[in-house]
Amino acid sequence: MASIRDYLFDTAFLDQSIDYLAEAHNLAVTVVDSEGMAVASRQPEGHDTPASRAYPFRFPSNIGGIVCAAPDPARLDQAEPHILYCLAALNSQLLRETELQETTEEMLQLASQMNFLVKVAKKIIGIDDLKKCYQIILEEIATATKADQGFIQTKGRWGEEIRVTHRMTEEEVAANRQSANLQRSASGSTIICTREDGASLLYSPIKEKKGLSGQMLFIRTGDHRAFSASEKQLVGIIENIISPTFETLRLYDSLQDLYLNTVKALAAAIDAKDEYTHGHSFRVAKYALAIGGELGIDSQQLNDLEIAGYMHDLGKIGISELILSKPGKLTSEEYCLIQKHPVFTDKILQPIKLPAHILDGATQHHERMDGTGYPLGLAGADISLFGRIIAVADVFDALTSKRPYRDALPVEEALRTLCEGIDTLFDREMILAFISALRSDRSKEVLGAINIVLRHDDLQNLNQFLIELTAFAMNANRN
Amino acid sequence: MASIRDYLFDTAFLDQSIDYLAEAHNLAVTVVDSEGMAVASRQPEGHDTPASRAYPFRFPSNIGGIVCAAPDPARLDQAEPHILYCLAALNSQLLRETELQETTEEMLQLASQMNFLVKVAKKIIGIDDLKKCYQIILEEIATATKADQGFIQTKGRWGEEIRVTHRMTEEEVAANRQSANLQRSASGSTIICTREDGASLLYSPIKEKKGLSGQMLFIRTGDHRAFSASEKQLVGIIENIISPTFETLRLYDSLQDLYLNTVKALAAAIDAKDEYTHGHSFRVAKYALAIGGELGIDSQQLNDLEIAGYMHDLGKIGISELILSKPGKLTSEEYCLIQKHPVFTDKILQPIKLPAHILDGATQHHERMDGTGYPLGLAGADISLFGRIIAVADVFDALTSKRPYRDALPVEEALRTLCEGIDTLFDREMILAFISALRSDRSKEVLGAINIVLRHDDLQNLNQFLIELTAFAMNANRN
Ligand SMILES: [Fe+2]
Ligand SMILES: [Fe+2]
Repeated sequence: MASIRDYLFDTAFLDQSIDYLAEAHNLAVTVVDSEGMAVASRQPEGHDTPASRAYPFRFPSNIGGIVCAAPDPARLDQAEPHILYCLAALNSQLLRETELQETTEEMLQLASQMNFLVKVAKKIIGIDDLKKCYQIILEEIATATKADQGFIQTKGRWGEEIRVTHRMTEEEVAANRQSANLQRSASGSTIICTREDGASLLYSPIKEKKGLSGQMLFIRTGDHRAFSASEKQLVGIIENIISPTFETLRLYDSLQDLYLNTVKALAAAIDAKDEYTHGHSFRVAKYALAIGGELGIDSQQLNDLEIAGYMHDLGKIGISELILSKPGKLTSEEYCLIQKHPVFTDKILQPIKLPAHILDGATQHHERMDGTGYPLGLAGADISLFGRIIAVADVFDALTSKRPYRDALPVEEALRTLCEGIDTLFDREMILAFISALRSDRSKEVLGAINIVLRHDDLQNLNQFLIELTAFAMNANRN
Repeated sequence: MASIRDYLFDTAFLDQSIDYLAEAHNLAVTVVDSEGMAVASRQPEGHDTPASRAYPFRFPSNIGGIVCAAPDPARLDQAEPHILYCLAALNSQLLRETELQETTEEMLQLASQMNFLVKVAKKIIGIDDLKKCYQIILEEIATATKADQGFIQTKGRWGEEIRVTHRMTEEEVAANRQSANLQRSASGSTIICTREDGASLLYSPIKEKKGLSGQMLFIRTGDHRAFSASEKQLVGIIENIISPTFETLRLYDSLQDLYLNTVKALAAAIDAKDEYTHGHSFRVAKYALAIGGELGIDSQQLNDLEIAGYMHDLGKIGISELILSKPGKLTSEEYCLIQKHPVFTDKILQPIKLPAHILDGATQHHERMDGTGYPLGLAGADISLFGRIIAVADVFDALTSKRPYRDALPVEEALRTLCEGIDTLFDREMILAFISALRSDRSKEVLGAINIVLRHDDLQNLNQFLIELTAFAMNANRN
């Protein structure tokens, strides 16, 4: 049921028109809706009106019209030029009103898109993680378009896949990745389509400087209203305007990777000088990451922990290889010099504006919980988290590596030795985390670093041993 | 002079109204503008019209009205209800028309802001230089707001100032930096104001995650039309939406700096192992930068050249310090091993995805123009640009440094020795560039690296010497 009253922002002129026809022409006037029901009427007093004529409004179509009635057709004939002018005025009014409403809607939509852009920009400012940034974009678009599900699939720093999902299972993502529409969207166009179950799907390509790098998919299952052209447009605008940030994040990400690998390569070169420490920094970083991962440290911090691991023995550049790999007993002077390597590490790294937690991690790996370590004799929580982690990783690698004066210890023995140092030398929590990492699915990866290829039996035995060791470590040295 | 015809998008209804009044009421009708001039009129044939009345349009104000004329006032009286209704219809029409035009304008403005944002985003995508990026933003805003001058002043990676200007001299920038309005804008609000000479000024703060980081200023001198509210709004929107890109660029920039400094610190640690190479990599990087700068290499490439300079002797980690700093003559075996250091550098850096020009620069510094160098025996242009630059820098530092078997050579002698190797050992262009750098204002800075504090006389003498040497180097070894 459409009525002219729904179309007019201000109905004053409609009322004025009815009054004019009723008063100036002595007509009974009724405005009717599309179904002929009266929505307004004016009838001169004591009026008998057997003759009547209907005049429909023209635009927008089917919103009713004006019915004029009079005692006889002659009076209607006489009034007709006036009625027609009145109708023309109302039609003209309706036309402008409709245009105004459409333009207002378009303007409000643009304004809300602009606000949305500003809001999204404020949310992603300063976030240095590509995946986290995409997750925010995904959630924001899903909310703005009232999508029930969605995913973004794109490329990271070295072209590797980045995928973020919004209320979507791996199976659903996999099913949609087979879709022909995703292929079409991958060729550069945004597509809205309807799935067999009635859900509306919106596919959109993600561009980067060098071309297409991925796709977004949004699904509206709930109320089954299809995505609109303006929602499609919004997604396109966001994608366009946010992409410089992503491009820069990709650059940042690849430089982070380069940094990590450069430090790793240099550490490896330093380790390689002494056959007994070959691969030491690499393994220490690996064990440190296993501990950090078990502690739930976030990925950015794990990246920093890895760097600290690679850097921890840099100071050995400053010590003659004659002393470092001397086969016999060291003189007390030589021993003193070796103990200085964390100080040298600090000296080398000091001029760099390295984040403090990395520097502390690298230079405190010989500090011990009871304050008997070096170079500063820090104790307990005064030793940084990274320092306590790398201490455990460092000693574990030393024990499981061959030395001029002894063979490499088996993993079990090395762990038992570490446990004996709980609270006095090492942080209990770090040792428990390390044991826990060895028990987890990652154990092969972690132990793979020490080239001990464990047979299935060994793994079983190791697991049993680790369970017992955990119980021991939980209570070791408590009195 | 305002006329209703300028306000109506479509004048069909105006014509219809005139016709109606003329035909249905037998009136002479004239539509007049704000100055009483006729813009349309309709006059029944053979009509005498001594009686007339004017009906002004109501909104927008002062756009004229309708003048109705008839043979006698009685006919005007009789027609008046119809004339008034007709006037009401036109007034109502004008009201909507005005709203429509305002909304359309607002909508078009938003649409053009959106297009502008997309355009700017496309321009800055993939640009990894903070200053270049700000320069683009400055030019784009200046063009969009028709500003004649402008500058952006903000902070870089470590809080250092970044300044870009648009058709503004240093003096003008300095004068504006004293301005109280700049201080007000620095407190967070965008300001439009008029300068004494009538120019319009638009100040806007630049935000970053942690607060305000700078300001923009745009000046319109030419036509002296003041900046509009919508231009002010545009600048604010751009600033908001582009800021995540800048924030990320700042991160990227600081990581670039960290990377450079880390490599520098490690190179310094390696050099420090041998008292005779103390500071070698630092100086080589400095000389290489002087040559590169003289060749007009861009700042990003200079950054890479500096990195290559720090890395060029990394491979010495793999060579025993006993050989490196052996005072006597080396055995041929030892000499062979020393010659392997670029191969070791390559081996260390190979696993890193380092840009090829950095890796080549670091590993080819002992290649010689005639192919007699090592490790690959490359010749001429087969040696990379960075390799040819670092070769000159490396030899210059070796010659001007003390060795166990000789004193440091004076700068003049070292340069003469280099010149003797033009075309056979070294690239003429690199040597000319180096001499040119020493002659320039930067000479003190460059030579400062070798701890030769030159007195004024020496500098004068050196300059004369360099002029002669340039002439010599231009023609040396040509036949
Ligand atoms: Fe150590
Ligand atoms: Fe070298």
